[in-house]
Amino acid sequence: MRAAVLTEPHEFRLEDRPRPDPAVDEVLVAIGDVGICGSDVHYYEHGRIGDYVVEEPLVLGHEAAGEVVAVGDDVTSLEAGDRVALEPGVPCRRCAHCKRGEYNLCPDVTFMATPPHDGAFAEFVAWPADFTYRLPDHVSTTEGALCEPLSVGIHACRRGEVETGDTVLVAGAGPIGLLVLAAARAAGATDVLVTDVVDEKLAFADERGADRTVNVAEADLEPVVTECTDGEGVDVVIEASGAEPSIRSTLDVVRRGGVVVLVGLASEATVPFDVLDVVDNELDVRGSFRYENTYPAAIDLLADGAVDVGGLVDFEMGLDDVDDAFQRAQEPAVVKGMITFE
Amino acid sequence: MRAAVLTEPHEFRLEDRPRPDPAVDEVLVAIGDVGICGSDVHYYEHGRIGDYVVEEPLVLGHEAAGEVVAVGDDVTSLEAGDRVALEPGVPCRRCAHCKRGEYNLCPDVTFMATPPHDGAFAEFVAWPADFTYRLPDHVSTTEGALCEPLSVGIHACRRGEVETGDTVLVAGAGPIGLLVLAAARAAGATDVLVTDVVDEKLAFADERGADRTVNVAEADLEPVVTECTDGEGVDVVIEASGAEPSIRSTLDVVRRGGVVVLVGLASEATVPFDVLDVVDNELDVRGSFRYENTYPAAIDLLADGAVDVGGLVDFEMGLDDVDDAFQRAQEPAVVKGMITFE
Amino acid sequence: MRAAVLTEPHEFRLEDRPRPDPAVDEVLVAIGDVGICGSDVHYYEHGRIGDYVVEEPLVLGHEAAGEVVAVGDDVTSLEAGDRVALEPGVPCRRCAHCKRGEYNLCPDVTFMATPPHDGAFAEFVAWPADFTYRLPDHVSTTEGALCEPLSVGIHACRRGEVETGDTVLVAGAGPIGLLVLAAARAAGATDVLVTDVVDEKLAFADERGADRTVNVAEADLEPVVTECTDGEGVDVVIEASGAEPSIRSTLDVVRRGGVVVLVGLASEATVPFDVLDVVDNELDVRGSFRYENTYPAAIDLLADGAVDVGGLVDFEMGLDDVDDAFQRAQEPAVVKGMITFE
Amino acid sequence: MRAAVLTEPHEFRLEDRPRPDPAVDEVLVAIGDVGICGSDVHYYEHGRIGDYVVEEPLVLGHEAAGEVVAVGDDVTSLEAGDRVALEPGVPCRRCAHCKRGEYNLCPDVTFMATPPHDGAFAEFVAWPADFTYRLPDHVSTTEGALCEPLSVGIHACRRGEVETGDTVLVAGAGPIGLLVLAAARAAGATDVLVTDVVDEKLAFADERGADRTVNVAEADLEPVVTECTDGEGVDVVIEASGAEPSIRSTLDVVRRGGVVVLVGLASEATVPFDVLDVVDNELDVRGSFRYENTYPAAIDLLADGAVDVGGLVDFEMGLDDVDDAFQRAQEPAVVKGMITFE
Repeated sequence: MRAAVLTEPHEFRLEDRPRPDPAVDEVLVAIGDVGICGSDVHYYEHGRIGDYVVEEPLVLGHEAAGEVVAVGDDVTSLEAGDRVALEPGVPCRRCAHCKRGEYNLCPDVTFMATPPHDGAFAEFVAWPADFTYRLPDHVSTTEGALCEPLSVGIHACRRGEVETGDTVLVAGAGPIGLLVLAAARAAGATDVLVTDVVDEKLAFADERGADRTVNVAEADLEPVVTECTDGEGVDVVIEASGAEPSIRSTLDVVRRGGVVVLVGLASEATVPFDVLDVVDNELDVRGSFRYENTYPAAIDLLADGAVDVGGLVDFEMGLDDVDDAFQRAQEPAVVKGMITFE
Repeated sequence: MRAAVLTEPHEFRLEDRPRPDPAVDEVLVAIGDVGICGSDVHYYEHGRIGDYVVEEPLVLGHEAAGEVVAVGDDVTSLEAGDRVALEPGVPCRRCAHCKRGEYNLCPDVTFMATPPHDGAFAEFVAWPADFTYRLPDHVSTTEGALCEPLSVGIHACRRGEVETGDTVLVAGAGPIGLLVLAAARAAGATDVLVTDVVDEKLAFADERGADRTVNVAEADLEPVVTECTDGEGVDVVIEASGAEPSIRSTLDVVRRGGVVVLVGLASEATVPFDVLDVVDNELDVRGSFRYENTYPAAIDLLADGAVDVGGLVDFEMGLDDVDDAFQRAQEPAVVKGMITFE
Repeated sequence: MRAAVLTEPHEFRLEDRPRPDPAVDEVLVAIGDVGICGSDVHYYEHGRIGDYVVEEPLVLGHEAAGEVVAVGDDVTSLEAGDRVALEPGVPCRRCAHCKRGEYNLCPDVTFMATPPHDGAFAEFVAWPADFTYRLPDHVSTTEGALCEPLSVGIHACRRGEVETGDTVLVAGAGPIGLLVLAAARAAGATDVLVTDVVDEKLAFADERGADRTVNVAEADLEPVVTECTDGEGVDVVIEASGAEPSIRSTLDVVRRGGVVVLVGLASEATVPFDVLDVVDNELDVRGSFRYENTYPAAIDLLADGAVDVGGLVDFEMGLDDVDDAFQRAQEPAVVKGMITFE
Repeated sequence: MRAAVLTEPHEFRLEDRPRPDPAVDEVLVAIGDVGICGSDVHYYEHGRIGDYVVEEPLVLGHEAAGEVVAVGDDVTSLEAGDRVALEPGVPCRRCAHCKRGEYNLCPDVTFMATPPHDGAFAEFVAWPADFTYRLPDHVSTTEGALCEPLSVGIHACRRGEVETGDTVLVAGAGPIGLLVLAAARAAGATDVLVTDVVDEKLAFADERGADRTVNVAEADLEPVVTECTDGEGVDVVIEASGAEPSIRSTLDVVRRGGVVVLVGLASEATVPFDVLDVVDNELDVRGSFRYENTYPAAIDLLADGAVDVGGLVDFEMGLDDVDDAFQRAQEPAVVKGMITFE
C-alpha cells in the first residue's frame, strides 16, 4: 500500500509499505478521507511539537474515515463494507484515568501521527474495532473525518457545561473555533459571539450561525460583551485561538461565576492571569484536552443535521499531491484541506 | 378591573375588582394572554387537586404575559411599556431550598391559581419585578405565556441531564410532552421518540420534530426501542403522561445507567416499581416539580427560534367566553387554549 | 492447589486443581483471606441467584486478599511479596460503559464466583494486575478482603452524593449497612440513623458510630426522623436491607429534594412506589450496583483509620472447614465470616 | 450600647450608639464573641482593601456569635435565649445569582465590616433571622464565631470537590489554611499535605492532622509530592496563602485532570500561569469566594466533633482592649484572636 511519510521538515516521501494485518480485535480500514490538521502542518514545518519530535519517518494524519475491508477474529460490531470514522487515540485501558472514563488523559495513549505512532495518510490502517465507528448511510466519509475536530468542539463545550439558553463567546474562528461554535449551538447556546483578527474568518463564522462577530484587532471586546449581556458578561468563554491577548481577555468578559475553557494551544507557555479576578468572581478556568466519548455524539449530530460541516472543506487532493496540499492548507483563508483516496 | 373567578366547580363569575397597587418591588402588569392549563381545568371540574381545595372564590390562570403599566418605587429593571412574561411561583426567599437555588421546592411559595392565591384571568396583576421577565420585540405575549409550560419542559430535561447526542423517549404528547420534546431537541438530543395513545397527538409530535412516534395502545414499545438503540435502551426517558402503564414501562426501555424523569402527575398515587431493575441497572428515577431559573432560558430559546411554539395554540378567546374556553380546552385534539385580553 | 468447589446446593468438594499461570498482564496471588458474602451463601443454599445458575461446579468467594507470588511479563506495578486486595470484577474495557468509566455496568464483566466464573476459595488466583491493589504495611489482608463490601458502601454514598454535614439514614445493619455507615461518616455525614429489625445488629451499629438506631419492627420511623431533622427529613436514605416495607418507607423519611439510594437487593421484584411523592418532592431514587473506582479510596480509608473494619469479622476458619463456615455465616448475629489460608 | 469604631487607620474609638431595633424578620443578638480576621487587620492598617475604602467611621468584625435577646414580629425560627452564629453576608435575594443559590456572588450583598456596612465589634447587632443559626448546647459561641472561617474552608473544599480517599495539598497554614485542612479531612481526604514558610505554623498543622508538612522556603515541593503520590500529583490543591510563588507552583503538583482552588487573596493581581499545562493536563483552576449554604454544615461538623477548632484561639480580649488585640493579632505565631463580650 502507499503512504505519505514525513522524513524531515517539508519533505514527504511516498512509500510502498506492507498492508497491515488486523489483530483479533481490530478492523482493517481502506482510508477514504483524512483532514489536514494544524498539528500535521506544524510537524511538516518544524519536525516537532514541543516535546514530540519526529525522529523516525512518520506518517501524518489523524482525522480519518474510510471503509472496513477486513475484520479480526473477535470483531462482531463491524463487518467489511461498513463505512467508518476512526477515533485516533487508543488509550491503555488500564490506568486510573482510563478506568475513570477520562481516557483522553491516559499517559500511554497511542495517538495517530504523534511520534512514534504512524497516522492515516496511507491506503490502509488497522485499528481497534471499538475505536472505529460505523457511519450512517447519509453521513459521508468526509464528514466522518471531520468527527475528529468536531469532537474537540463537543468536548470543549462539555468542559464548559454549555447548556440551553447560554451566551457563549468563542475566541478564534479557525476550524476548532467554528466547530466549537457548532457544538455550542447544538448544546442549546442561544447567543454565540465569535472573535478573531481576520475579517474573512469572521464572515465565515457569521454565515455559520454566530450571533455576533468581533474583530479584536480593530475593536474592543468588552463594550460589545457588556452590550450583549446587559453588563453581566457571558456564561462561558471557549478560547480556541491560543493568542495571548485573547487568553488574558477571557477573564474580563466572562460573568461572575462563569467558566473559561482553554482549548487552543497557547503560543506562549505562560500568560499573566488576573488571579484576584478568579477569586473575587469565583471563576472556573478549565483546560480541554482532545476528547473522550464524543464520537457517537459527533456522528449523531451530523446524522441529525444538528451540526453541518458542509462548506468547511476548502479543497480535496490525492495522496500524490500531499506536498501541494500542505502548502495550500497554510493559506489564511483555508479552513480545512482534505486528502482523499480513490 | 374585570376578573374571572371560580366560585364552585363549573362556575365562573366575572367580577369587578379593584385594580391592585404594586408594592415597592412589584410591577403592575396589564395581562395580555393567559394559557389554560390542565390544572386550571382540573380545579374547574373538581374544585380541588389533591390537598389543594378551592374553599374561597379563586382566580385561575398561571401561564401569563402582558405589558407593564406601572412600577413600584424600588423597581429599576423594568418600566411601563415593557412586554413581559410572569413566572407564577414566588418563593419565600428565606428557607434552605431558596438559599440553595432549588426555589421550586420552597414550601411557602405563592403560586398563582393555587388556593388560596389568585391567578391571572384578570385584567391586571401586581407581581414582583424579579419574577417578571422582559420579552424581546419579536417574542409575542402569546409566546410569553407559553414560557410557563416550556419551563416545565426545560426543567425536566435538566433533571434528565439531556445532552448532545442523547436518545430521549418522551411519554405523552400533550402540551407538556410536546414542550419536553422541544426542550430536549434544543438541549442537543438527536433522537427523540414520543409515545401516546392518541394518533392525532402523535401526528402532531411527528410534525414538531419527533424522530419516531409510537401509539402504545396499539404497539409494543420495547421492540421499537430495541430497534432504535441497537438493543441498548434510550439514554433518558421523560414520563409526561402520568398513566400507570407508561410509568411502569419506563424502566424497561431506559438503558443501563440511564435516567427516568417523572414529570406527569400520576393518576394513581402508587405504582409498582421493579426495584431489582433499578439496582441491577443502576437507574436513576427522578421527580421533576415545576421549574427554577428557567424563564431567561425559555425566552432565549423562543427569541433564538431554537424552540417554536407556533401552532401549539388551538384557540384564543376573550375573558367573556371563559366558560366556553374551558369546555373547548377539554376536547381531545386541543393542545392549548388561550384567554386573550384586548 | 486446593479449592472449595460448590457442586450442588449444600455441597462443597475440596479439589486439587492445577495452579493457574498468570497471563502477561496478570499476577498470581496466594490467597490469604476471603470473606463469605451473602451471595455466596445464597448460591450455597439455592444453587442460583435469579438468572445466574450454578450449572457447572463453581468456586465461590469474591472478597479476597493475599500475596503476590508471581507476575506476568508485562506487569511492572506489582512484584512478588506484595500484599494485595483483589477487585473481583474485571470488565471488558471496550464497551460504552467501560469507556465512560462506569465499568460496573459492563455487560461482559468477569466477576468472581458468578457463574460461570470461579472465585477465590482456592489457594491461588491469577488476576489482572490493574485490578489488584497493593496494601500498605499496616493494612492486613483481612482488611484487604473487606475492601470489597466497603467498596459497595463507598459507591452507594457516592451515588447518594453524601457530603459534609449531611443527615443520612441507613436502612439495614448487616455487613453492607454497617459499611455504608462507615463510608457515610468518612464522607462527612454528621448524623447517621440506622434501622433494622434485630436489636443485636442495631447495638452493633450503635457501637460503630450510628447517632441513632431504630428497630422498625417495634417503632415507627417517621416520628424519629421528624424529631431528628426538625421535620425536614433526612438528606439521603441508603436502603441496604432489601425488605419491602423498608424500601417503601424511604420516600416518607427523605427530605424534599433528597436522594434515596437502593443498594440492597429486594426480596420482591416489584415494590409499590408513591410516584406522586417522587414528583411533588422532586426526589431522586437511584440504584447502586457494585462499584467502580473505589479500591484505592477503600484502601486509603483503611490505611488512614478513617474507616475501621476491626470487629466486623466474627470468625475465621480454614478451607477444610468451609461447610461449617457457611453454616455459621447464617447465624443472625454474625456480621462477617472469613476463610483464611495459611 | 458600646461599639469599637475604626475612624482612621490604627484608630479605634469606643462609641456609645443606640441599640438597634430588629425589623420584623430580624433578631437582636447580644454579641458574645467576634474573631479578628485578616481583613479586619487590613482595614485597621491601611483603611482599605482594594476598592473598598473606609470613608466613614466603620465598625469592624464579621466572625460573630452571641445570644438572641429579642425577635422581630415575623420571626418564628428563633427565640430569646437562643445562642446563635451570625452569617455576615446577607444577599439581595432577587438577582440571578441569589436565585441560582450562588448567593455569595450577589453583587448587592450586605456584608458586615465591609464599607459602608458596620460589623460586629458592638454589644448588639440586629440581623435577619434566616442568616442567624442556632447553636446546639455543646457548641460554644467561640466556636460559633469560628463558623465563619470554617465556612471559607468548607466552601473551598466543595469547590475542589474533595471526596473520600483524596490526596489534598493545602498551601498556607494560617487560619484559613488550617480550617481548609479540617474541612478536607471531614470531607474524606485521607492524605493532606500542608505548606507554609513558617515552621511554627507548620508544626501547628502537624498537630491538627496534616499527614505531611513542607516548608517551601527551605525545600522543594515537587519531589515531596512526587514521593507521596507515586509521581501522579495530588488530586486537589487548595491555595490559601496568596503568595505568588505558591500560586504558580500549584500547577506543578496537581495531578492530570486535577483541581486547583484559589482561595487566598493574591498579593499580586496578576500571576504568570502555565496555560499549556492547564490545557495539556486538562486542569481546573477555580476561584473560591466566601461561601454559601455552609453554616448548617459548619455547625454540624462542630457539634459532631468532626472538626475541632479548639486551640485555634490564641487570646480573648474585651472590647476595651481592641487596640491591643489588633496589635497582638499581627504576631506571626498567632492564629486567631477573639474579642469577647461579657
